[in-house]
Amino acid sequence: MFVLVNLKAYPCDPVEVATAAADVADDSGVRVAVAPQAAHIDAVSETGVETWAQHVSPNEHGSHTGSTLAEAVADAGAEGTLLNHSENRLKLADIDASLDAAERADLETIVCANNPAQIGAAAALGPDAVAVEPPELIGTGTPVSSADPDIVTAAVDAAARVDGDVDVLCGAGISTGDDLVAASDLGSTGVLLASGVAKADDPRAALEDLVEPLR
Amino acid sequence: MFVLVNLKAYPCDPVEVATAAADVADDSGVRVAVAPQAAHIDAVSETGVETWAQHVSPNEHGSHTGSTLAEAVADAGAEGTLLNHSENRLKLADIDASLDAAERADLETIVCANNPAQIGAAAALGPDAVAVEPPELIGTGTPVSSADPDIVTAAVDAAARVDGDVDVLCGAGISTGDDLVAASDLGSTGVLLASGVAKADDPRAALEDLVEPLR
Amino acid sequence: MFVLVNLKAYPCDPVEVATAAADVADDSGVRVAVAPQAAHIDAVSETGVETWAQHVSPNEHGSHTGSTLAEAVADAGAEGTLLNHSENRLKLADIDASLDAAERADLETIVCANNPAQIGAAAALGPDAVAVEPPELIGTGTPVSSADPDIVTAAVDAAARVDGDVDVLCGAGISTGDDLVAASDLGSTGVLLASGVAKADDPRAALEDLVEPLR
Amino acid sequence: MFVLVNLKAYPCDPVEVATAAADVADDSGVRVAVAPQAAHIDAVSETGVETWAQHVSPNEHGSHTGSTLAEAVADAGAEGTLLNHSENRLKLADIDASLDAAERADLETIVCANNPAQIGAAAALGPDAVAVEPPELIGTGTPVSSADPDIVTAAVDAAARVDGDVDVLCGAGISTGDDLVAASDLGSTGVLLASGVAKADDPRAALEDLVEPLR
Repeated sequence: MFVLVNLKAYPCDPVEVATAAADVADDSGVRVAVAPQAAHIDAVSETGVETWAQHVSPNEHGSHTGSTLAEAVADAGAEGTLLNHSENRLKLADIDASLDAAERADLETIVCANNPAQIGAAAALGPDAVAVEPPELIGTGTPVSSADPDIVTAAVDAAARVDGDVDVLCGAGISTGDDLVAASDLGSTGVLLASGVAKADDPRAALEDLVEPLR
Repeated sequence: MFVLVNLKAYPCDPVEVATAAADVADDSGVRVAVAPQAAHIDAVSETGVETWAQHVSPNEHGSHTGSTLAEAVADAGAEGTLLNHSENRLKLADIDASLDAAERADLETIVCANNPAQIGAAAALGPDAVAVEPPELIGTGTPVSSADPDIVTAAVDAAARVDGDVDVLCGAGISTGDDLVAASDLGSTGVLLASGVAKADDPRAALEDLVEPLR
Repeated sequence: MFVLVNLKAYPCDPVEVATAAADVADDSGVRVAVAPQAAHIDAVSETGVETWAQHVSPNEHGSHTGSTLAEAVADAGAEGTLLNHSENRLKLADIDASLDAAERADLETIVCANNPAQIGAAAALGPDAVAVEPPELIGTGTPVSSADPDIVTAAVDAAARVDGDVDVLCGAGISTGDDLVAASDLGSTGVLLASGVAKADDPRAALEDLVEPLR
Repeated sequence: MFVLVNLKAYPCDPVEVATAAADVADDSGVRVAVAPQAAHIDAVSETGVETWAQHVSPNEHGSHTGSTLAEAVADAGAEGTLLNHSENRLKLADIDASLDAAERADLETIVCANNPAQIGAAAALGPDAVAVEPPELIGTGTPVSSADPDIVTAAVDAAARVDGDVDVLCGAGISTGDDLVAASDLGSTGVLLASGVAKADDPRAALEDLVEPLR
């Protein structure tokens, strides 16, 4: 299982979370990555943790003020990028162009989507993975794997119909090791989580609990 | 073949074009529809021509100022709607929600896209049809069917892989009857056209020429 | 006082509300206008009521699919347009260009804004009027004139500092004649209202109550 | 005069340009700052140069994936931020909220705008400075100060009418010391420039030439 911790714009210390994530990944053997603010990628990747961007822009090098250039986040240490998170929905044409940008910069890609139909659409664009995130569950602490398991299996089916090679992640309400196991049982190969770790009093303990069943 | 004339924001007389389109459809037996500005749908549909919206918003009834409610365009006489035209690119989640809105209002749907990958994504959302429009050919008078026939066959293949029932239209640079025949030969079941008719000195003559090979 | 009834995307009968508004305007001598969906402008203006658009796009005639062309809404009978409603926030550059578009089409303009600073900014662009609408009060039935009278006087001041000729309207939570009088006492020359009329069981009675204190 | 070098998404080495800018600022006594990609702020500010962000998002701390949090860019070393650059036009309400975000993070602010009317609107929102950038001159090498000097003086007047304390910068086509002097003569207190330095074969020489008349 792949565990991607999205720090969003939370008021956490990104280096503290990253250091904990790097240690937990080392100790457990579970793949754990952290997606900080673009301006924190440099500092986060210095901890040795696998670092992801939360977004990259669809543009190439050129006259694009305020964009998030894929090459720049890669240069700062990112190895992958989320795209089309429910808090940052993109135009279909821009998801496609951002995937091209990520590929040029050698970034792995996860495209998020709301429901199985959109998961099928996202998979048709050829990302490395897709993540199903029913918007109504984000930030609730209610894991999609128990609140709406059918949506996960339907997402896995929709993705497989379009592209047999694409991974499917679960992306809403995940916070415990049991949620992780449930997500795996439904056919997903990873999870996106955010507040469960980033807003925890003790992010290290939260991550340790999370990966416990996978050790 | 289905011929959809998109009037965009052109300074043409929408009722004159609509009347010509209605007559040409009657005389030739070819299905011809006209997509005017939302504010002209009422007047255009009064001519008896099949009338389409250029866009509908993803929202339902409610507090949405400045939206284009699917139910309102249907009420004014529209029978279908374009979505995600290259001049009006939408978020993936909004294409999905606009398709739901169109279905509630009993509108037929065509989702436009730039290239075969996006055509596959659009088809995965379940519209009635998709239209492939390489942006670089729009408004050029160079038909996609001759400038880049491979993109049309690739789009037909991409759509079929995802949804065997979805129609594929050609949508850029079409202006003559020969273009229409070429589009049909490549596997498409219709065309979107705009300036070739809407900006013609004699829109009726342009439409008659267009459908001539289909009579 | 100017009373503008914004029908948004409500499931009301726009012609019924428009007919009531036309009658109430005639009987009371109060200026009352109705802003329906673009696709309903034609039918609404046929009732004789002063008709407004809820929005116009910043573009001129040309290749702009899915836009709301100022000339098209004027052609269908609109005499004015709202811009930048809190449910349809626009880019600063687009408010400016939409004002140009409205002027070309001879449409009166009201630019909405959240707070006095934005009211000053909107006034600097030279519209006929601005409307202050604290987002947290929209649709609440709590009139801005009583919930936050200071914001209205601050808006009137901010507008006057930038452009002495611009009118200031109150635009959130207005539903009764008393609200109208309070808005007038605070220096505004009109009100935007929506659900108070459009969702009333008897829109005519709601309008009559509203204008009663102005007769 | 304040010289702000916007690196946009250019394929330059941001640290090389930053080092040159820091040296030129030291040698000449002219205030020179560099605005890199968000992911490069950390490395650029390490050179000791005054570092700016190209943009910050309107949001506060919280659940906002893919945003550019003002606190994060400040944390990485930024001392100011551009907003509403013509390549990144913002909603009026978002310029206002991004100014609030910048203030919370103690960032200096420059709001860009197309023309004198929009400059007045931008000034009404209370930034530290505004920058006038006619879009048609950006990247041309034709300085606004010679191509259209009236637009600069009109911008200075428009800003002064609304807020006597706001600085006005010139922001399009500036590349030489003469352009800088011309901009100063028209009443501006700084310049934005980009390709003239970032795409120069020798950025240090370009900066030295630029500040030469100010020594």
